[in-house]
Amino acid sequence: MSWIKIDADSPFSLANVPFGICSPTAGASPRAATRLGDHVVDLAALAKAGLLDNALEQGERHVLEQPTLNALAALPAAKRTAIREEVQKLFSDSGKPRFEKAFGSSADSKALYDVQDVTLYNPMAVGDFIDFSVYPAHGLGAGRAIFGPDTPLPPSFSRLPMAYNGRAGTVTISEEIVRPQGQTRAFSAQREIEIGECKALDWEFEIGAFVSQSTEDGTYLTPETARSHIFGYVLLNDWSARDIQGFEMVPLGPFNGKSFATTISPWVVVPEALEPFAAKRPTSLNGVEADIPDYLRESDGAATNYDVECKTYLRLSSEPSTAHHISTARFADAFWSFPQLIAYQTFNGSRVQTGDLLGSGTISSQGDNAQGCLLEKSQGGKVPFKVGNEERRWIEDGDEVVFEAVAGEPGKKVGFGQLRGKVLPASKLRKL
Amino acid sequence: MSWIKIDADSPFSLANVPFGICSPTAGASPRAATRLGDHVVDLAALAKAGLLDNALEQGERHVLEQPTLNALAALPAAKRTAIREEVQKLFSDSGKPRFEKAFGSSADSKALYDVQDVTLYNPMAVGDFIDFSVYPAHGLGAGRAIFGPDTPLPPSFSRLPMAYNGRAGTVTISEEIVRPQGQTRAFSAQREIEIGECKALDWEFEIGAFVSQSTEDGTYLTPETARSHIFGYVLLNDWSARDIQGFEMVPLGPFNGKSFATTISPWVVVPEALEPFAAKRPTSLNGVEADIPDYLRESDGAATNYDVECKTYLRLSSEPSTAHHISTARFADAFWSFPQLIAYQTFNGSRVQTGDLLGSGTISSQGDNAQGCLLEKSQGGKVPFKVGNEERRWIEDGDEVVFEAVAGEPGKKVGFGQLRGKVLPASKLRKL
Repeated sequence: MSWIKIDADSPFSLANVPFGICSPTAGASPRAATRLGDHVVDLAALAKAGLLDNALEQGERHVLEQPTLNALAALPAAKRTAIREEVQKLFSDSGKPRFEKAFGSSADSKALYDVQDVTLYNPMAVGDFIDFSVYPAHGLGAGRAIFGPDTPLPPSFSRLPMAYNGRAGTVTISEEIVRPQGQTRAFSAQREIEIGECKALDWEFEIGAFVSQSTEDGTYLTPETARSHIFGYVLLNDWSARDIQGFEMVPLGPFNGKSFATTISPWVVVPEALEPFAAKRPTSLNGVEADIPDYLRESDGAATNYDVECKTYLRLSSEPSTAHHISTARFADAFWSFPQLIAYQTFNGSRVQTGDLLGSGTISSQGDNAQGCLLEKSQGGKVPFKVGNEERRWIEDGDEVVFEAVAGEPGKKVGFGQLRGKVLPASKLRKL
Repeated sequence: MSWIKIDADSPFSLANVPFGICSPTAGASPRAATRLGDHVVDLAALAKAGLLDNALEQGERHVLEQPTLNALAALPAAKRTAIREEVQKLFSDSGKPRFEKAFGSSADSKALYDVQDVTLYNPMAVGDFIDFSVYPAHGLGAGRAIFGPDTPLPPSFSRLPMAYNGRAGTVTISEEIVRPQGQTRAFSAQREIEIGECKALDWEFEIGAFVSQSTEDGTYLTPETARSHIFGYVLLNDWSARDIQGFEMVPLGPFNGKSFATTISPWVVVPEALEPFAAKRPTSLNGVEADIPDYLRESDGAATNYDVECKTYLRLSSEPSTAHHISTARFADAFWSFPQLIAYQTFNGSRVQTGDLLGSGTISSQGDNAQGCLLEKSQGGKVPFKVGNEERRWIEDGDEVVFEAVAGEPGKKVGFGQLRGKVLPASKLRKL
């Protein structure tokens, strides 16, 4: 139990303790913070008051006073673990006297803020953004939507984690995105190329992992050694303009259809917080035992996925007070784990860098209402579905997409909070 | 004429004046520099001595004291133009008294160094690396090598500048790269997947452009307004493992086959230096007038390509003293200009950032010995060619690839210097 109020349903229980960046008051410089319920805790203030002395040397405190978490992420993992444990002690009931000794008991404590009152920032300066595609249900569903009902998974799907490099410069915690324009090809109608706004705008529910410590060029990690290079996880919306992708993808892959925006949630959930929900990867694909290459093989019994429920909601502009439930999928259905993703991308000798962001690819599970994107849900726009009193094939202007992912029992929940994204009309695009 | 010795054949004549980053002496902090012949000029020292007061305010001098050129690149273009003009005045014959008044006439001038004695660094912190493919001869040659003699250009080639996002974290001025390993598929033999070292290692001769000032998300540039967002150009080797690409490319594009290394030359050549060699883009493709979309159309008479000769040489490990000439191609044969590349990639509302690097794609021209990569030269490894007393299909361990690109008359040459890259064996890869 904590001496500060944390709702039993909050994904930010004392079992979570994620990292983020905030300005606690207007004009205050951005610094490291954590979240407990609807409170934001200023970690730089805790350190300055000596309350993190068991975790950080005095010369290391500056990592909490930076405008991004990169310096914190680059520290040895044990330091971050220790910070989290100190926070857990301080805000458990027995920690109250220590906190009050440092900050007093007034509401204006200079370390505890209401989340409504603070300004949040991108938690990390993103190095490279690398987006994978490791969910069999998505691979099959997307293939069927584009190429027809009997389309199999790409041949490489079960041999390596399929991936492309995305655009790092447009990764943002912004809760609004502008509908992109481009050279589009209607998805299920005539095949003419048009130039104009995207008419097949989609979301992709993903979870992203930030890299902690860098490696050097000419080295590579195994799934085992890659584990300690994960700083933590965020929700990620890989916004996709399907009709722009439709013309550009062959042969070099997705580009302007994806690069306009990738939104992420502001709180980085650390691996220790998810460890109670560790799950084994699926070992077979469509009932067939998968043939994993040696360099990607995990040790027997390794539980490197996490059992977290991923829910998508949609708010219509005509009815913004209602969040319509669209789908629920399982994070644990990933055919490849994040340690395998890192091992794969370094196997050629490429280094990873603090701040690199890896996306899981669309999290879809088998079954009804388990699709992490509209490409699957509306079968490429061919089959509209009901949302409240309206129909949708793709996202319309003013719609707000909401992602949530959470695990655990009431009072001990671990989750990401909401990732919200509202679509503004293409008319907002400004020619320079 | 300059009062310092500059060989008539040097690509670093007084008409060039590129920007780079160096430590002039052991232990000195990295700072901005330029190159004249075989001299390196410490720009931070010039500024400190007051010799750049016509170009920079006192509060702006710090941009020359940074370990990258990003802060300099983010200044308004007129500031950089003024720095270059001041350097040209100072090192023309009439400038000698001013220089000597500040630094004395001794060889140990504290602003002028021999290029052999300084340490060079990556000139820019790379934001995103975006690699295009805009040379028709390469598009056709690569297609033929992979899919057979009658393969046409991809349908999008003439409608938009084809591109993918590359790996920014492995862009380097290093002159050595380690042969990558991966899941490979032999290029012209059986189609089994093997796991091991790349056996079809290739170079790609490209020229890269660094972005100067950033834009904001939700805005886009035209070819006209994009021009002022180019900081300058470098040679770029987009090292490619063809047998790794062979398995991974469908459907998401190149990944581990390219991400292990992208090497660039250390001196950023500014647009003004190349302006005397401005050339118009080709307006037809295979004899057919191209149908350029409005948003990519340049103004009539715009000369946005540059007439620069691009030469590739190969040094064999058995005969390292000889640089064998492999090919000569023309930078000006690009079907799309760099301003068009930027306009295209921002059209969906994506911002560009200071330090973003855009690659031209392989620079190949029509005709014999005009191919910018081995995929074309050896027709995918099927047709070996003579190099000295040996044969090559792909790059072998110990081979050194040398790129040069230069324009102009003796005494007024403008070029990039050499981009050298030697291949170390895959046994150097280190498992962590």
